[in-house]
Amino acid sequence: MKFPHTLGIIGGMGPLATADFLHRLVSMTPGEKDQDHPRILVDSNPEIPDRTLAILGKGPSPVPAILETAGNLMCAGADLLAMPCVTAHHYHEEIQAALAVPVIHMIQEVAGRYEDDFLGRRAGLLATDGTLEAKIFQIHLPSDRILTPDDATQRDLVMKALYGKTSVKGGETMQAKCLLLQAAGRLIREGAEILVAGCTEVSFLLDPGDLDVPLLDTVEVLCRACLDRLTR
Amino acid sequence: MKFPHTLGIIGGMGPLATADFLHRLVSMTPGEKDQDHPRILVDSNPEIPDRTLAILGKGPSPVPAILETAGNLMCAGADLLAMPCVTAHHYHEEIQAALAVPVIHMIQEVAGRYEDDFLGRRAGLLATDGTLEAKIFQIHLPSDRILTPDDATQRDLVMKALYGKTSVKGGETMQAKCLLLQAAGRLIREGAEILVAGCTEVSFLLDPGDLDVPLLDTVEVLCRACLDRLTR
Repeated sequence: MKFPHTLGIIGGMGPLATADFLHRLVSMTPGEKDQDHPRILVDSNPEIPDRTLAILGKGPSPVPAILETAGNLMCAGADLLAMPCVTAHHYHEEIQAALAVPVIHMIQEVAGRYEDDFLGRRAGLLATDGTLEAKIFQIHLPSDRILTPDDATQRDLVMKALYGKTSVKGGETMQAKCLLLQAAGRLIREGAEILVAGCTEVSFLLDPGDLDVPLLDTVEVLCRACLDRLTR
Repeated sequence: MKFPHTLGIIGGMGPLATADFLHRLVSMTPGEKDQDHPRILVDSNPEIPDRTLAILGKGPSPVPAILETAGNLMCAGADLLAMPCVTAHHYHEEIQAALAVPVIHMIQEVAGRYEDDFLGRRAGLLATDGTLEAKIFQIHLPSDRILTPDDATQRDLVMKALYGKTSVKGGETMQAKCLLLQAAGRLIREGAEILVAGCTEVSFLLDPGDLDVPLLDTVEVLCRACLDRLTR
């Protein structure tokens, strides 16, 4: 099939999440030969400042670097953009307002999936401090259904899985996965009926079969949204 | 660490091999945070005509589309290029002559690794018909040490793993892997002391632990070469 659009991936947030996103997107594309696939451009730009630090007021805004990256992709031919980083969606409105091409809103897509498949269920959220602080999911999903980890779990398990020496960013994927599974277990014991992989790197680390409850996988949702929009 | 260069990946040959290459490159990069990684641009352009068909005289040359893709990457800031497709290296000289930035020569890098680690050993080659026909490896490695599959093995096992419904391009990775392992077994029985994953998609399918002999993995060699050149 011919795709009428070229997708640009605003990447590097982080680099492994970007590579995992591209891999899953390509794997989910039906086709028998190279020419059945859409054209995809990636700018994996690790110079984009850390999103969590910015939201917590401890670092510069990532928006100028995200816009530079988006502009680069548009110059190269992208007419549809995706940003495989949940935390960066805190800035989606500001980013979209500055760009002439659509940037798929990952969190709105996740909200749509929640409404379709899990409406009313208590959703345990595994995400960065920045995503929790900015209430990125609470804005788009029913906030009274979202269960977040207690402070100790967030600090000692979730954030340690995502940042630093023991983390996926540090290349320690097995250690990071163990930390996340402990955090997931606590959320399930507190009543979570589904878990939201609320960070691209959580999605990279957790598989649906790892848990006793369904996993709402933000990356899988974004992949489906990309493939859907690419054909329209 | 800061990287003085931006890598551009001439991709889409095929899309899954491109995504796998990016994933492995990022995974092999040491670092604890996003900002420790190099900037990487990818143009996964599946419109590049099939390389094997071109070499066999059954399709158009991929060179114009490869040059367009390379130009796109250079416009976006790439000053070092890599082409994660073995068969496309038949055209490396023509491509390099037309471009002002270096295109890492994957096959010369593989030849260097063969000399360093495996010199003199009989190397069984798993590659496309186009790569065999163009003698891409025989030009750069000692040709009397290279063992290629007999015609039936090449046709019924190797090419079926790489093209069509039962192939990795068709999304059937487990079926494709089984076909390749059978071909590898035959080469080992005929005297191969190492196996060369002579196609990015062979590299994607085979792991070193799958075989009784060492695997000379062209993709791993290209990843190392990229990381080395990015720091210089």
